[in-house]
Amino acid sequence: MHKPNLRDEAIELHRKHSGKIEVASKVDIDDGKDLSLVYTPGVGDVCKAIVEEPERADTLTSRGNMVAVVTDGTAVLGLGEIGPKAAIPVMEGKSLLFKKFADIDAVPLSLDTKDTDEIVSIIKALQPSFSGVNLEDISAPRCFEIEERLINELDIPVFHDDQHGTAIVVLAALYNALKVVNKKHKNVKIVINGAGAAGISIAKLLLHAGYQDITLVSLEGVVRKGESWLNIAQAKIAEETNTRGTAGTLDDAIQDADVFIGVSAPRVMKKEHIHAMKEDAIVLAMANPIPEIYPEEAWEAGAAVVGTGRSDYPNQVNNLLAFPGIFRGALDAKAKDITMKMKVAAAMAIASVISDEELSPAYVIPNALDARVARLVAKAVRIAAIQEKKGRNSVS
Amino acid sequence: MHKPNLRDEAIELHRKHSGKIEVASKVDIDDGKDLSLVYTPGVGDVCKAIVEEPERADTLTSRGNMVAVVTDGTAVLGLGEIGPKAAIPVMEGKSLLFKKFADIDAVPLSLDTKDTDEIVSIIKALQPSFSGVNLEDISAPRCFEIEERLINELDIPVFHDDQHGTAIVVLAALYNALKVVNKKHKNVKIVINGAGAAGISIAKLLLHAGYQDITLVSLEGVVRKGESWLNIAQAKIAEETNTRGTAGTLDDAIQDADVFIGVSAPRVMKKEHIHAMKEDAIVLAMANPIPEIYPEEAWEAGAAVVGTGRSDYPNQVNNLLAFPGIFRGALDAKAKDITMKMKVAAAMAIASVISDEELSPAYVIPNALDARVARLVAKAVRIAAIQEKKGRNSVS
Repeated sequence: MHKPNLRDEAIELHRKHSGKIEVASKVDIDDGKDLSLVYTPGVGDVCKAIVEEPERADTLTSRGNMVAVVTDGTAVLGLGEIGPKAAIPVMEGKSLLFKKFADIDAVPLSLDTKDTDEIVSIIKALQPSFSGVNLEDISAPRCFEIEERLINELDIPVFHDDQHGTAIVVLAALYNALKVVNKKHKNVKIVINGAGAAGISIAKLLLHAGYQDITLVSLEGVVRKGESWLNIAQAKIAEETNTRGTAGTLDDAIQDADVFIGVSAPRVMKKEHIHAMKEDAIVLAMANPIPEIYPEEAWEAGAAVVGTGRSDYPNQVNNLLAFPGIFRGALDAKAKDITMKMKVAAAMAIASVISDEELSPAYVIPNALDARVARLVAKAVRIAAIQEKKGRNSVS
Repeated sequence: MHKPNLRDEAIELHRKHSGKIEVASKVDIDDGKDLSLVYTPGVGDVCKAIVEEPERADTLTSRGNMVAVVTDGTAVLGLGEIGPKAAIPVMEGKSLLFKKFADIDAVPLSLDTKDTDEIVSIIKALQPSFSGVNLEDISAPRCFEIEERLINELDIPVFHDDQHGTAIVVLAALYNALKVVNKKHKNVKIVINGAGAAGISIAKLLLHAGYQDITLVSLEGVVRKGESWLNIAQAKIAEETNTRGTAGTLDDAIQDADVFIGVSAPRVMKKEHIHAMKEDAIVLAMANPIPEIYPEEAWEAGAAVVGTGRSDYPNQVNNLLAFPGIFRGALDAKAKDITMKMKVAAAMAIASVISDEELSPAYVIPNALDARVARLVAKAVRIAAIQEKKGRNSVS
């Protein structure tokens, strides 16, 4: 007998259960009395209570704990545009993780449209049923506009996990890695290889957290103010990054860098790149499943701390460390947005799981399944959200 | 101590559990291996399997058992237009009942739009995530157009329960009631008081089931071909009903009627109306919570069989007898529509629950909580759907 491979096992698991989630009842219906309470006529009084005080929808219905996980199937995992139906397994996986790590009821909604306006108007129309929206696997640059418009137009938090989830975990990893190599200052030179949704979002969050020397590199070359090939999002981030005006390719940008952050393509980083970096190089090579450089090679070339997107190497950068706790905290605080401050608070909470004594080159990021993480993230995000609310209220 | 009233009890039950439904996991995640199967990287292979064979989405994801329960909050119970948020308790109640009686995962979606085009395009875009759509509490006449367009444009069954659910149970009740009074022929004179969504749908289904002598009465008067006040739906049904061309009001239509079907307003039927009916009058007075005539009055006036929408009188006409089994049967048959034949089959299945020996004036409709009903309805609907598919295939 041979051991079935992962593919067969994954498909069999999904087939056996017909998917991974179900809608379950929180109350019993055993007799006519029960029926009269959960359905007509009793339910009418519950409806009326919400008409009188609309905010009671959050406590008298499941809405207060419901998050929509929305995709259009255009940028699913490393598979690209596989369409909304084929994206469902990922969305259901997300629902499972929301439930397990944050006790959130997440409903996967795969949309059969790629039209930005239509996606925005659909999610707006769905707002009465949900207290949060997790955008997932929507391709750039549409994902930026969709998220930005929804943040402006909705009263509930909207979070594009592919952008911000990775960014938050990267910030946590960077914070701990810099401790390990004893470079605690914020003017380390950081190169982000990949200037799509994730790369730009990482740059924004690192800037917000105080890191000043960041350079992005795209397939077209180093992102530099004035380059003709920049898209709108790249042009915007070019204003705040690459302050020394480096031109060229990764070969140029990587010179004397302290940190390499890869959200790009398999095997694009060579040992020579690490040789060109400063001592105690930090390498987060997150292309998945094949990283920009394999950890063995990076270590051989002298990198001090190496992380990837893979679970079979140390320091896995996994969004799972961020999104459940972030939404839990935001829902608990009844936050209307997930702000930069809340994201930084989440990153610091993730980093804090590992004590200074435990920190090591092979352990700067907590394990993806560490149950402490979501609890700490939720608490930090909730506190940050409440502080921001107070701040706004005292200003107004 | 006094017994808390139904209102307080219903609100407390909803508050205690924060609503009635949750999203639950069908698989466990206990370690990294589990995670790699339900999420990345294993889930990628499941996605790819669906790319190769799209219909596998129904067996590898929860989609095959997922139904959207969609409202815009414009015609909720007897409360009218209370808006999408206040409608959620009813939609969640529906989800509970779908689960309990048919093991269907029903997701409540309350839409913040009343625009017909927008509602249609939203539901179309959501099609990848669901195998059926239950429209709920959408006001007439928009509900007709929305349902008709969705039936034409979607590949999954769409069912406006307020129209067809009631119609199906009425047909079942009528079938059994006519047995009780020994009038088994299909040319009994039937008056339907109320010419909105439910009334017109009842008329259509009874016509399809072979009943020929049907007259509708609206607030404006008897529905008759050529009347200037008819809306489009009423004008259409006027072509096939009121064949003797009666004009006037309920007072005129009710003369010599065998059957009164009320989907109208409280207490609009008087004892005199029953006196004007033929002997062994059948009265289904379904205005809720206050019927067109209370059973005590109807019995005193000589009605032979009386039903209402209430659970505290015999013969409750409750949609719950229809929708769970209908969707179960349609999903099991992978039906693309819920056809007239499937609806008639559902009604006959509901009626069949009561044996000829058990049938009595006080028992022509099964109890709403009778667990046999959904099973029998599902089976009958599945068989009808498969027969229709075969019929279509042999023609094409």
